[in-house]
Amino acid sequence: FIWNSAFKFCTLGLNLLGSAVMTLILYELCAEDRDLRFSPYVWRIKMALAHKNIAYKSEPVRFLEKQGFSESGSKTVPVLRHDDVWTSESWEIAKYLEDNFPDGPSLFGGNMGLSQSRFISHWVDRTILPGLFPCLVADILGHLGEKDAQYFRKTREPYLKCTIEETVEKRDEHLKRFRKNLGALRMTFSEQAYLCGDQPAYADYALFGSFQWARIFSNQDVLAEGDKVCDWRDRMLDLYDGLARQAKCS
Amino acid sequence: FIWNSAFKFCTLGLNLLGSAVMTLILYELCAEDRDLRFSPYVWRIKMALAHKNIAYKSEPVRFLEKQGFSESGSKTVPVLRHDDVWTSESWEIAKYLEDNFPDGPSLFGGNMGLSQSRFISHWVDRTILPGLFPCLVADILGHLGEKDAQYFRKTREPYLKCTIEETVEKRDEHLKRFRKNLGALRMTFSEQAYLCGDQPAYADYALFGSFQWARIFSNQDVLAEGDKVCDWRDRMLDLYDGLARQAKCS
Repeated sequence: FIWNSAFKFCTLGLNLLGSAVMTLILYELCAEDRDLRFSPYVWRIKMALAHKNIAYKSEPVRFLEKQGFSESGSKTVPVLRHDDVWTSESWEIAKYLEDNFPDGPSLFGGNMGLSQSRFISHWVDRTILPGLFPCLVADILGHLGEKDAQYFRKTREPYLKCTIEETVEKRDEHLKRFRKNLGALRMTFSEQAYLCGDQPAYADYALFGSFQWARIFSNQDVLAEGDKVCDWRDRMLDLYDGLARQAKCS
Repeated sequence: FIWNSAFKFCTLGLNLLGSAVMTLILYELCAEDRDLRFSPYVWRIKMALAHKNIAYKSEPVRFLEKQGFSESGSKTVPVLRHDDVWTSESWEIAKYLEDNFPDGPSLFGGNMGLSQSRFISHWVDRTILPGLFPCLVADILGHLGEKDAQYFRKTREPYLKCTIEETVEKRDEHLKRFRKNLGALRMTFSEQAYLCGDQPAYADYALFGSFQWARIFSNQDVLAEGDKVCDWRDRMLDLYDGLARQAKCS
């Protein structure tokens, strides 16, 4: 009993010590090269953490390295561990940060802003991400290790309804269609600096994650020169001492 | 000089009397039947006025009756006259109402909400309105007087790149494509009652105007039965004692 208590006490002490040094861990997707951190959903959270000036430790995981965050119950990243609280899904993590780190600038600007951000992030998921995916998928595949590449092909080709290699031939067509869907963004960015106004906030991060994903993998710019969306992207890349601009690209 | 001053004094008196009774006039588009008030942009403002519980006088105008609001400098409705201040364009009018009637509930919920509403209204203008237009255009034409119909055909057919009659044959195809673009709305309305959260606000009105436009003209529902967007539309139709539900349909 005494030893058991002594052991528990020590564990508690170590936990407290650990907490004081670093309480947040963000699990994020990486390629075979662990410095290529490419998940569009994770980038939403990396920007949100910087927005609120929250320190965290990053834990890069490959597609098949899910054991590290199995306690979260999630099979996909981002996953955030805050002491013993696990949160998964980018939207849930953003709300968790807003609720638990109220001292930093708001990610949503109140309930009405939060609800509209929800729609905008769904719109990104339904329009921007699927629009970019066939333009990037072959590049992503090329940067995965053998097992991850097998997993990636098996899970993504049914969605694409073709082989990953076949997407390359139609890349220009996909890119043209993608660019056609940016009209509302162009109109917005010709009037205001960010989706959220004079300053960026979560809706901008939700959108930006997709462009950062493209930037990390693609040799070809997914935006045409002179596009108003480029100006916004440049402003996003400059934020937080160039956090996203400095990220390693393939 | 005395007569002139006396006349000015009387005019001022009448103006003040008029102001006390009714200071706001909303110019809105009507069909040959002046009770068919169908502009999707005007409906944004009618809902916004109801949201803020602002009384106003409605002035229905047909396409070629622009002289009544020529002082505004605008050739399109909605136009709002507030005493001697003229405002045009639905977005500008919404901001004007927010700034000049601060006592009523907010249309935007702060700057971040306003900026996101701007994107959402652009998205409606780029996706929802052009998606619905070819499904409705023939019905609209059928409810215009001869001169308005000529004007309408002349200005709209270049945009459609076909005759208005030709759109009828492809209506099902257009409707199918339109419904495909509603994914983000469906996801949002399966989680929250309105685009703006628990309560509707400007972004909802920006979207709703399009569905009200369709409702006023079309025999066929533009939404499929059971669509989550229908539930939202029903909630919108119930607002303000059924303001939109009671509007005359063709």
